[in-house]
Amino acid sequence: MAPAKKPTRKKTSSRKKKAAKPAAAQGELGFGAPAAKAKGPAPVVDPVAATPAPVPEQSRPGGAAFGKVARRIRSESNIIRQKILLGEKPVMKFPLRSLSNVTYNASTGYFKMKGKKKERTLTVNTVKTFAQTLKMMALSKELVETDDIATKREAYYVSKNWAEARFKEQPESDTVMEDVEAFFGVNREQLGFVPEEKGGDVAGRLIVIDHDRDTGEELRIDCTRFGSGAYSIPISVEELAFETDARFILCIETAGMFQRLVKHNYWKKAECILISLGGVPTRACRRFVRRLADSHGLPVYVFVDGDPYGFSNIYRTLKVGSGNAAHLNEYFCVPQAHLLGITPQDIIDYDLPTHPLKEVDIKRAKDALKNDPFIQHHKPWQKAIQQLIKMGVRVEQQSLAKHGLNYVMEEYLPNKLANTKAFLP
Amino acid sequence: MAPAKKPTRKKTSSRKKKAAKPAAAQGELGFGAPAAKAKGPAPVVDPVAATPAPVPEQSRPGGAAFGKVARRIRSESNIIRQKILLGEKPVMKFPLRSLSNVTYNASTGYFKMKGKKKERTLTVNTVKTFAQTLKMMALSKELVETDDIATKREAYYVSKNWAEARFKEQPESDTVMEDVEAFFGVNREQLGFVPEEKGGDVAGRLIVIDHDRDTGEELRIDCTRFGSGAYSIPISVEELAFETDARFILCIETAGMFQRLVKHNYWKKAECILISLGGVPTRACRRFVRRLADSHGLPVYVFVDGDPYGFSNIYRTLKVGSGNAAHLNEYFCVPQAHLLGITPQDIIDYDLPTHPLKEVDIKRAKDALKNDPFIQHHKPWQKAIQQLIKMGVRVEQQSLAKHGLNYVMEEYLPNKLANTKAFLP
Repeated sequence: MAPAKKPTRKKTSSRKKKAAKPAAAQGELGFGAPAAKAKGPAPVVDPVAATPAPVPEQSRPGGAAFGKVARRIRSESNIIRQKILLGEKPVMKFPLRSLSNVTYNASTGYFKMKGKKKERTLTVNTVKTFAQTLKMMALSKELVETDDIATKREAYYVSKNWAEARFKEQPESDTVMEDVEAFFGVNREQLGFVPEEKGGDVAGRLIVIDHDRDTGEELRIDCTRFGSGAYSIPISVEELAFETDARFILCIETAGMFQRLVKHNYWKKAECILISLGGVPTRACRRFVRRLADSHGLPVYVFVDGDPYGFSNIYRTLKVGSGNAAHLNEYFCVPQAHLLGITPQDIIDYDLPTHPLKEVDIKRAKDALKNDPFIQHHKPWQKAIQQLIKMGVRVEQQSLAKHGLNYVMEEYLPNKLANTKAFLP
Repeated sequence: MAPAKKPTRKKTSSRKKKAAKPAAAQGELGFGAPAAKAKGPAPVVDPVAATPAPVPEQSRPGGAAFGKVARRIRSESNIIRQKILLGEKPVMKFPLRSLSNVTYNASTGYFKMKGKKKERTLTVNTVKTFAQTLKMMALSKELVETDDIATKREAYYVSKNWAEARFKEQPESDTVMEDVEAFFGVNREQLGFVPEEKGGDVAGRLIVIDHDRDTGEELRIDCTRFGSGAYSIPISVEELAFETDARFILCIETAGMFQRLVKHNYWKKAECILISLGGVPTRACRRFVRRLADSHGLPVYVFVDGDPYGFSNIYRTLKVGSGNAAHLNEYFCVPQAHLLGITPQDIIDYDLPTHPLKEVDIKRAKDALKNDPFIQHHKPWQKAIQQLIKMGVRVEQQSLAKHGLNYVMEEYLPNKLANTKAFLP
């Protein structure tokens, strides 16, 4: 086995990347609150009143990106403030977040929202929700300015100190948070809100660059040096930068298969980065893969169980995002992903032991054929799923062990990787 | 915040530790197959036949421990071989793995098996299971000698090449694997079998020492240098060694709370090691905490939601192990664990927002009072659970955010840590 080269050849900085990105790419939902801007007299903006204590935006790593969000919160809330001072009813417009407001765009590669919006005008009936939305924005501003984070659950509990504006149940506060997220057309992490769950382990030819929060010191996290362990992806990955000389990223469904490849240093031989999805990938994991792949133009190959869950839940979610969070898919999709296996055809080609499809598998497969815009767009996927239904079986990654425990590394993966053009889209 | 000292003060080697341990501590189940040894004429052992290709046991890190297992597999199977050659019926005796065969031992601190055993004599009816058991032992020997691993699922698929001895369904192969594990009185990881699931993230004042499998190079994994990320615990932790100057280990139920403490480098101020359990801790996570705590005599404090699930599932499993895997609890319990919070009394003392107990919570709490030998042994636990039932509420870790997002680090944890004697046992 070839000794591992230090992955130091290429380098990009996440900060440079962000600065170079055109503003239009920030979100197709439209930046700002068009209604409040378009209607009524142009409000007189008082920047001093709106920004009582200007905060140095470059005082921490990634400050520029977060500073932009804080600025937008200040300017939007100032518009609302001015409306109120002028004796007018302030209005906020939010993109409608539902499957009926979604299209699949093959060129951008993710579920995209259509233009439908809902309005929230300040009236006697909406006053509580309106106030909660503003308080949630204020919390976000505080988080961004102090480099802090809050989970959905924490934000709910913070509201217990908002007197009459407090939330009774967490689903209420989650909805308002998602409104704020869609309103600004940025992802929750950029507002300082982070998901509850973590997920995603990394090993292989990669150096992750993070910073010590207290000292600002650069931390170089070398994923070639974790032995049988791995790097656990943090909840928010917006600030990370990457150095790598890997040829591709290999995403793996099960922790057991990931552990086998890590144990045998498979990333050395294959010159790649291994990522354990641990089932359906979390937001942080999807965002990590996306940012890493973007930063070095790396292809992403996905290795899952050959069943409808592996295809239409795990792989599809990684590649194009999920249906019910379409306002976020731009950030949480990985358009460069392709399915390495296990394909229905692999069952025949590699003579693999199988299990019969369960009722729930068949239902899921038929649903995907009938309702999933992604599957409907790709003929090879329709064929693969129809083949699986016809064969009436499903296959697990570990079934390759029939030919020997390390057959997967010695035969299956090299064979497949020799012909990546044949991967499912 | 004080700058982090390099955790280099104390050092232990896992290998030295193991060598120094008396053999009796290896397993109360009795090493070897007592029946086969006690009954019948003493078999003539032919070490050459039994060990056709002696393997250097010290050729890899931790080889001594694994070598011992390989030797035992060879000697046990040789006894069976000799019995067969003598025309006698070989017998294997396995401890009965069920709750009815379990006691709680307060001095050792974990659920312990009573002496009940089941026999498996080679007859026409048992020939298939007998053969499978031997094949499973042979697989373990191969894994141990080649420094490889197999998950339960992989072992099942490997059996597809065992001709008539192949398993039809995975539960069959799981049972045989657990028999082998109990037979040798070691944990599955020592036999080369690893669980499917991973779990447990680590950050703070700890250096984990692992080895590169190919080069043998020592890898020093510094958990103070992961930024907002963390070290992900591998599936098998038997080979790891530790260096630390931490004062204690803090185990945290939710990924969100762990992320808050990591984000703020809480481990610097508190001079500790942070471990994210991610719900009910996996075997690898429990074993990691146990080995780490043992190696440096560290106390383990546990911070979970204040509800019956947090107490009797998460905490109880970490501390004394689980009921249905009692043959393993010796390895997978953490007797030095104590509950920091959130206790029912904390709800009052810290004026925390709560949720009403659900039906399932009440059932779980009453079950614990009635059936759990651990709870029944500890009066303070009975009182705490009765108090919770009486109050009719449960409380989440994040509820501390009512007093401000960082109240948990600035007030709650320091207050509690000032009086560790008051922690629940």
